[in-house]
Amino acid sequence: MYSRILINPFHKGCVIFSKCLTRKPPANSSWVRTLSQGTQSSNSHDFHEKDGHGNARRLTITGLGAITLAGLYYYYKKNIPTVWAHEKKESEVNTVAREPGSFVDGLPVYTSDDVAKHRDESTGIWISYKSGVYDITPFIKIHPGGDTILLGAGGSVEPFWSLYAIHQQPGILALMEEYRIGNLTKGEEHLAMANMDDPYANDPRRHPALVVRTKKPFNAETPGFLLVESFITPTDIFYVRHHFPVPDVDPSSESYSLEVVGLDEKDSLNLNLDQLKTAYAPHTVTAVLQCTGNRRSEMNRVKPTKGLEWGQGAIGNAVWKGARLRDVLLAVGVTDSDENENWHVRFDGLDTDPTSAPYAISIPLTKAMDPRGDVILAYEMNGEQLTRDHGFPLRVIIPGTTGARWVKWLTRIEVSKNECESHWQQFDYKSFNPSTEWDKVDFSTAPAIQEMPVTSVVCDPHDGEKVKLKDGKLNLRGYAWSGGGRGIVRVDVSVDLGKTWHVAQLIDSVKVSKQWAWTRWQANLPVQTKETEVWVRAVDSSYNTQPEGMEHLWNMRGVLAVGYHKIKVSVDEN
Amino acid sequence: MYSRILINPFHKGCVIFSKCLTRKPPANSSWVRTLSQGTQSSNSHDFHEKDGHGNARRLTITGLGAITLAGLYYYYKKNIPTVWAHEKKESEVNTVAREPGSFVDGLPVYTSDDVAKHRDESTGIWISYKSGVYDITPFIKIHPGGDTILLGAGGSVEPFWSLYAIHQQPGILALMEEYRIGNLTKGEEHLAMANMDDPYANDPRRHPALVVRTKKPFNAETPGFLLVESFITPTDIFYVRHHFPVPDVDPSSESYSLEVVGLDEKDSLNLNLDQLKTAYAPHTVTAVLQCTGNRRSEMNRVKPTKGLEWGQGAIGNAVWKGARLRDVLLAVGVTDSDENENWHVRFDGLDTDPTSAPYAISIPLTKAMDPRGDVILAYEMNGEQLTRDHGFPLRVIIPGTTGARWVKWLTRIEVSKNECESHWQQFDYKSFNPSTEWDKVDFSTAPAIQEMPVTSVVCDPHDGEKVKLKDGKLNLRGYAWSGGGRGIVRVDVSVDLGKTWHVAQLIDSVKVSKQWAWTRWQANLPVQTKETEVWVRAVDSSYNTQPEGMEHLWNMRGVLAVGYHKIKVSVDEN
Repeated sequence: MYSRILINPFHKGCVIFSKCLTRKPPANSSWVRTLSQGTQSSNSHDFHEKDGHGNARRLTITGLGAITLAGLYYYYKKNIPTVWAHEKKESEVNTVAREPGSFVDGLPVYTSDDVAKHRDESTGIWISYKSGVYDITPFIKIHPGGDTILLGAGGSVEPFWSLYAIHQQPGILALMEEYRIGNLTKGEEHLAMANMDDPYANDPRRHPALVVRTKKPFNAETPGFLLVESFITPTDIFYVRHHFPVPDVDPSSESYSLEVVGLDEKDSLNLNLDQLKTAYAPHTVTAVLQCTGNRRSEMNRVKPTKGLEWGQGAIGNAVWKGARLRDVLLAVGVTDSDENENWHVRFDGLDTDPTSAPYAISIPLTKAMDPRGDVILAYEMNGEQLTRDHGFPLRVIIPGTTGARWVKWLTRIEVSKNECESHWQQFDYKSFNPSTEWDKVDFSTAPAIQEMPVTSVVCDPHDGEKVKLKDGKLNLRGYAWSGGGRGIVRVDVSVDLGKTWHVAQLIDSVKVSKQWAWTRWQANLPVQTKETEVWVRAVDSSYNTQPEGMEHLWNMRGVLAVGYHKIKVSVDEN
Repeated sequence: MYSRILINPFHKGCVIFSKCLTRKPPANSSWVRTLSQGTQSSNSHDFHEKDGHGNARRLTITGLGAITLAGLYYYYKKNIPTVWAHEKKESEVNTVAREPGSFVDGLPVYTSDDVAKHRDESTGIWISYKSGVYDITPFIKIHPGGDTILLGAGGSVEPFWSLYAIHQQPGILALMEEYRIGNLTKGEEHLAMANMDDPYANDPRRHPALVVRTKKPFNAETPGFLLVESFITPTDIFYVRHHFPVPDVDPSSESYSLEVVGLDEKDSLNLNLDQLKTAYAPHTVTAVLQCTGNRRSEMNRVKPTKGLEWGQGAIGNAVWKGARLRDVLLAVGVTDSDENENWHVRFDGLDTDPTSAPYAISIPLTKAMDPRGDVILAYEMNGEQLTRDHGFPLRVIIPGTTGARWVKWLTRIEVSKNECESHWQQFDYKSFNPSTEWDKVDFSTAPAIQEMPVTSVVCDPHDGEKVKLKDGKLNLRGYAWSGGGRGIVRVDVSVDLGKTWHVAQLIDSVKVSKQWAWTRWQANLPVQTKETEVWVRAVDSSYNTQPEGMEHLWNMRGVLAVGYHKIKVSVDEN
């Protein structure tokens, strides 16, 4: 095994995370394909909806191996033959004969707050799984690394299971039950949360694995190395970007409806959630959601900008299901005419600023009406009802377009000859050249950012990591994506400052158009030096590629930071 | 006035070209807008078709001022009051009372070859206009610059007239008639050609202003500084890119037809040109045609590539008119279904290689069927019948897509589940990374280039030019364009190696989508040093931008050379 140190400047300490050696694919093996296919398959077919509604709905994941459990399992398998025997003969697993994660009468009941308080050795390291609470401190204490704290500590292990489906092995759940110490409070089975001292009293709880950038409003990203583990990003560790407190909507009450206004007000519609679901055929789209400011921290190294200090994790890939916006707009009289070529569609959310103005933006009507544009009014994410953090009960999904336009808690749609006049449309999410400063900018000179440019990132290893080579080679993995449905046609990696470029293997299949999802990549490259700088860049189906550096891309708002991703790693020779 | 020296390494000598001071716009004046609007207007409305057909059809241009004539006119206006009087009283223009350019009985008759032999002072400088041949050597001799030879020398002045419409003034044609020496051979009225020692006996004649890259097959580009003069590039100086000799087609004979084959052969259509024109509504598109290898010469400075040594002029913007391909495909049973999402459309030209295989390529069917894709089967270019060099009688226009797909002399269209298997689809017009060499390339790993990336160029001044400043400022002009219909949202110019970026003024209006035309730009920048390096880069509506240099874009085929355009100019302080 080897361990990594994940340093997050926004956390007071650092989270030390153990990865099992078994998690690493052999160089050029079919491992990655298997994982990819397996994950895609499970995402496509194995989601199933649970009854009820709320904010803690998540993936029902087919895989059994979590990092936590895989760690446990492989350690025992290697070191403790008596435990290893559990796998060989199921009948011998007497101590854990019960259904894993089920409520066990007689054990103490803990709240998710209780679990969240146990994230290091001083308090004990707790995790939860379904109704079960587990103290895995004994395992940590005998762990060869000694200094490891599992990323899932203080929360549920479930979101990680889709990432590590490769570790599916019988017996792991049974093993875990040996560390069972109690039950979760009823109603909290789905997620154990960190105690985040949440400033917005009614905001939902979040998974502690998210790297928090601001708490008020809540903004947090996915650790980069987790992004590359699965084609679909699990909902609970999907990045969150809010401008205001999270609305708490009861879609069954009469207070919620979606108002749709055509150019002629008489064509308006009012739909509740059920009406939307039944009146319009559902459509499913797998698409990347990315913040306009993703990777801003790299741009800030050139010169400070204004915006959240995003790393590379303000992005995720999810399956979205809902009604086609085109169908809804046809119902309010919008047509496929040339006349409306330059019209717009405005979206209002239920989140409001201190003046009660809603978060609102617009997109070109042509995108909304494009039969191949795949814009949907989504009520599901990753096979389950939207969570509150992702816009429950309704969010507009605009594949290929920046996340700022994907309005959450959607309550109003309006077709207009004019672009939305809101702050977010007119004075934010725009880009200027590096010589344009705040004191002299004329925002009207730049169009609102809609489609996004091509980007790519090394997710694993991370910048500054000490890495082990395998057969003298450095294994690199990451994601690449472009806006407008343009597929990734090539990812180039260099470990010699651009003198030589290696073509990375694309893990996920790619279409040249309507490619809304991302494409993960991997490369195994020989490195000769103890310190290596890695560069990655992608080429999309329009053969646009990334600029070399952030310097000439710099803009005062720190958006569209899409230069080559450059990281430095050092070889751990021990 | 100031003069420039245009050096073309492919010409034996150099062409010295004079620009009138009056041609230069005052800094930040409304001049450029006026020119732009005027030119667009004339392109939109003032084309009218002539009867007959053939290979020498061209723009009928509303403007009167050619560089030649403007030069004449302004010189006389300034220096020779007696001539200036012509303008004031038309009745006094006795010597030129005839219709300018008409056949004059009694004057000698010259062939266009004769005219082409008169391009410098040793032979005399001749030009033609309609049926007229003119020896303008006397004007050159009294010209203050002394060393100027007009670009139109040896050929027709007509293609330049749309470029210099701003010089429209009464009396110019009358003045020109004073230099009348003869008539052109009948049938050659439309164009006087250079004597190009044409290797392909039946190839059409071309305008001598084209910068020839190869003669067999004929490949030639437009001088860069002419490109920026007008929104629409005149047909006769539009770049030409051939793979083989030019077919000579008589569309009225039974030998020519367009065969259209759906997925089911029984749905085939055979159309002659008249049937195509009458059965399908005509559609007009203004779109850039650009060679995949435009700007290759800049990439060759990094390391040699294989391909034509294009400068920045293998691009042009034209008005195309024809039948929508979508309409024709609907007629052979192609539908808007998801089933054909990954199908292709193949186009065959009448030009063939030595094995008689036609030039053939394919594009994705989704582009062909996109109601907003504007793919047309064009029979007109710039308001007149296609010329032979541009595919007479029929060429497919695929806006936003590389020129290699715009098959000329189109004779067959076929819908297929498979991409075209031709050399040009499978083994050419593909791009690889800089480390991929001919001896180890696997062409199947790269998709055929379709949509093109964003690019921009400084057209005026050109690299190496000695320039005059105006009020200490350098006037820069050029074009910017992106594929896929993505409009140009910003052009940045730097004269200090990227430390400071200036936003250029966009001359032509821009849409964010379906922007198939280019956008010309201009900037007036203060320069302090005698030697200045100018950088330009553009940003398109997907906020993709150009990479900084050609080094990392380098590919063995020398395609997609879209790095910053960088030129060096020196200030002429005399």
